[in-house]
This record gives sequence, structure tokens and C-alpha cells, in this order.
Amino acid sequence: MNVLIIYAHPEPQSLNGSLKVVALETLAGAGHDVRVSDLYAMRWKAVADAGDFPDRADPERLRYAGESRRAFLDGTQGADVVAEQEKLIWADAVIFQFPLWWFSAPAILKGWIERVYAYGFAYGVGRHEGERWGDRYGEGSLLGRRALLSITVGGRAPHYSDRGVNGALDDVLWPLQHGTLFYPGMAVLPPHVVYQSDRLTEPQWIEAADAYRSRLRGLFTDEPIAFRRQNGGHYDDRQVLRDGLGADASGTRIHVLAAGDPPQSPLG
Amino acid sequence: MNVLIIYAHPEPQSLNGSLKVVALETLAGAGHDVRVSDLYAMRWKAVADAGDFPDRADPERLRYAGESRRAFLDGTQGADVVAEQEKLIWADAVIFQFPLWWFSAPAILKGWIERVYAYGFAYGVGRHEGERWGDRYGEGSLLGRRALLSITVGGRAPHYSDRGVNGALDDVLWPLQHGTLFYPGMAVLPPHVVYQSDRLTEPQWIEAADAYRSRLRGLFTDEPIAFRRQNGGHYDDRQVLRDGLGADASGTRIHVLAAGDPPQSPLG
Repeated sequence: MNVLIIYAHPEPQSLNGSLKVVALETLAGAGHDVRVSDLYAMRWKAVADAGDFPDRADPERLRYAGESRRAFLDGTQGADVVAEQEKLIWADAVIFQFPLWWFSAPAILKGWIERVYAYGFAYGVGRHEGERWGDRYGEGSLLGRRALLSITVGGRAPHYSDRGVNGALDDVLWPLQHGTLFYPGMAVLPPHVVYQSDRLTEPQWIEAADAYRSRLRGLFTDEPIAFRRQNGGHYDDRQVLRDGLGADASGTRIHVLAAGDPPQSPLG
Repeated sequence: MNVLIIYAHPEPQSLNGSLKVVALETLAGAGHDVRVSDLYAMRWKAVADAGDFPDRADPERLRYAGESRRAFLDGTQGADVVAEQEKLIWADAVIFQFPLWWFSAPAILKGWIERVYAYGFAYGVGRHEGERWGDRYGEGSLLGRRALLSITVGGRAPHYSDRGVNGALDDVLWPLQHGTLFYPGMAVLPPHVVYQSDRLTEPQWIEAADAYRSRLRGLFTDEPIAFRRQNGGHYDDRQVLRDGLGADASGTRIHVLAAGDPPQSPLG
């Protein structure tokens, strides 16, 4: 299978750098084809701006989404953006390797999402008519692919537990896992996390590498998070969850299938 | 009072640009001193990397947090970073004006947080000993300041309602509001949001501007979100919410005070 690693850390000798090497070796050793987008080494352009569209439809006023759509359709996107889109299409699984900085992705990775996720590629896909809001959340251009966040966290695990002060990890990662991975159709595996990442001793690193190798072996077999599909029948025509569903939960958890839920309608 | 506007949009003629002007005029008209950090116009360096520390303690391996701490203490931070820190200290209120891109802040603003929020300035503040995890979440360097997210959203309001497919807006904004504003001690006001921001007609804009002016009049009087303080007695020494608190909620809502909760201990 084809695996793309999106790697965002400025220091090759970091824990993130080492985990990236573990993934490369483990996956290649298992016979997979692996490609890496090393955003820092590539000097990835992090900021979405007018420079992304040298030939603007409207030179007077930048409407980023509109220019993104036009450039995607007429083939004038930047070569760096096109290359990343092609890697995503090529991939059967995408691993994002990064340190959780301020409870989110590093800016360079956020900017990768903003620029690579073009209008027509990652959003604005599928029929938008009446109250249908396109193919997203379980459908879209990246359907059929798996996604895994492999992150390092400076804080301690209890701080990210269900009642931990930072918020439950699932809530912290909601905008990324649901909003950027599930959105264009990828199946999202539970995240792989190394806590207290600034303090790893050598024996702890060996243990962490082993744990990650073990996770990687399940990349194509582990059960993804069972997010509800937008167009699976569980949301009404305002895209609001129907009464009776998610009854035993609140917050982001209502958007995950629960035992006893009616089946979702098949993919269209 | 002193108000700092952190503004992140590439197009001055955008809705965000117009809302920034409304804030400037309204607040200055009310007698406040207003400063603006226009991140795109400043060509803000969005990416946290080795370039932030020309004189590294360890030239062989970049440990960003460690170098950030050293540079903060020995006064060798970049001038751009120092200027933003000084503005934050100067401010009585900070308004963040930006479009919600992929359920988060634009990369240029995320990079502002990563670089301006130095170790010793925004985190790693206060006593860290035993099971005390410093001054954060309701305490810290920015205590006494108010913060407001003023955002534009392409989607419709129901999609961000409590049961909407995008997740409740409070959950979407959790990493920003709780994790980056409340974390260094700011009191966070409920967000100000313009939905369906790509489709505003002229009458809708007039209405939106009026609604924002009205919110701005409450900048120093509106009630902030009642996030629990980490060191207010409601979390145990693992920073986990004590049994019995947040009993009627789940997800991020358990971290907001509820009627009948015991009082928090006073600020130390």
C-alpha cells in the first residue's frame, strides 16, 4: 500500500524526527511504498495569501476561496500545492507526525492544510443544492484513505484525560480529526500519542518506538473512529443531528456512532 | 482603556478588514487607545524555527521551548516577538479578528501564538513543583486582560449549533479560547461570529456592523466565559476535575462553572 507521511518539526534529531524514521523503516520493511513531505525541510510556504494566485480573476480584491476554485479548475495552482494533492491521491494512508503546539498543529502544517485543501479538491465537492451541503464528513475526494495523527505532547496524560484540565484529547483534536481529516472523506484512526515528550529517557524512547511500531502494524486493519457521515441519514437537512441520536452523550461525542444507533444509509 | 486588535486576513477589502475598521472606529470613538497588529501587512514570520534564535545555547540540536526560555530571560528574542509581547502587556483587552479556516485560526495567526507565547512569558510561568503545574488557566502573565474572538465563518449557524455537524462552536473554539487565551490568564468573552460570511448583502453588512458595534460596547462589561481556574480548587493534584463537579455535563462543558458549584479558592 502507499503511505504518505506529513512531517512537521524543525529539528531532525527531535523525538518527532525519530518517530518519522521509525515509521519509514517499519512501513517500508512491511513492503509498503512510503513518501514523506518534510514541511520544514521543504521550506513549505505556510501563509495563504495573494502569492498563491499570480493570475487572479479579480486583481482588485483577493477572495481566497474563489481564486482557489478557479486555479484548481484551470490548472494554475502552484506546483508545490499540486504535488501535495497528488501525494494525497496516491496515498492509501496518511500519517501526520507533529508536536502538539498550543493544542493544535504547528503553523507550518496548518498552512499546508489551508493551501493544499483547495476549493474543489477538499471542499466545495459534490452537489450543493437545496439543503444538501456537498460531499463532506465521510465522503469527498479523499474517501478510501486512512489518516493517523501521530503526535508528541509536552504535558502529562491525565491533563488530557476525559476530565483533565486541558480538555479530553478527543476534544482537543476535534478540529483536526473531524474538521480536516474526516471532512474530505478519510477514515480517522485513534491518535497515537507520546506524552511528556520533553523528558524521554533512553529506555523510554525504546519503549515509545516499540509502541509506535505496534500501532503502525495496525495502520490498515485498526478500527477507525466511527464518526457519523453527514449524508448517512443521521443529520437532518439543516445538518443537525436528529433527535434521539447521541442521547447518552454531549459535546463532540454525539457525532460518534453508538451502540443501538440505526444503520447509516449507504454511500451514494 | 487599551485595546489591541490582532488582525489576520490577506485582503483589506474583506469582511474581516471591514470589521477591523469598525472596531478601530468604535473603540477610538469611545475614548479607548487602540493598536492593531495587522499580521499580513506586517509580513509576520509564521513559522517557528531555528531562525528565531540566532545565538543558540545548543547549536547542534534545536529545542524550541528551551531556546525560547533562554532568549526570553536573557533578552535576545527577536524584535518582532518582543514588540507583540509588549503590546499584550500594554493591553487591557485583546481582540482577535480572523476568518475561521478549517475550524481554527489562519496559519499566520497560529504562528503568531507559537512565537509570541514564549516559555516564561505565556507558559512555564509560576511555581512548578510537586504536582503544581504552574500559573495557567486563569492565572499567568496576561491576568487582568480580556480577550474576544471576532470571527467570520463561511458555513451556516445551524452547522455550529449544539448538535450541528461541524461540532458546537464552543467545542470548535476550545483549543483557542481555553488553550491559548484562558491559558495565560485572560478572561475570555463569548465569541462574536458572522456566519455565511461569503454571502453578505449590503443590508446584511450594515446589520453585521451594527451588531459588532453593540458587542464592542460590552467589551469591558460583558460577562466572560466562566472557565474553572486550574488552581482554584476544582482540579486535583493530577489536574483532573474533582468528582461531583461538571456532573450534569460532558465534553468541554465540564470545565465551565455551573450553578451550585462550590466557590473557587481566591487567586494566590
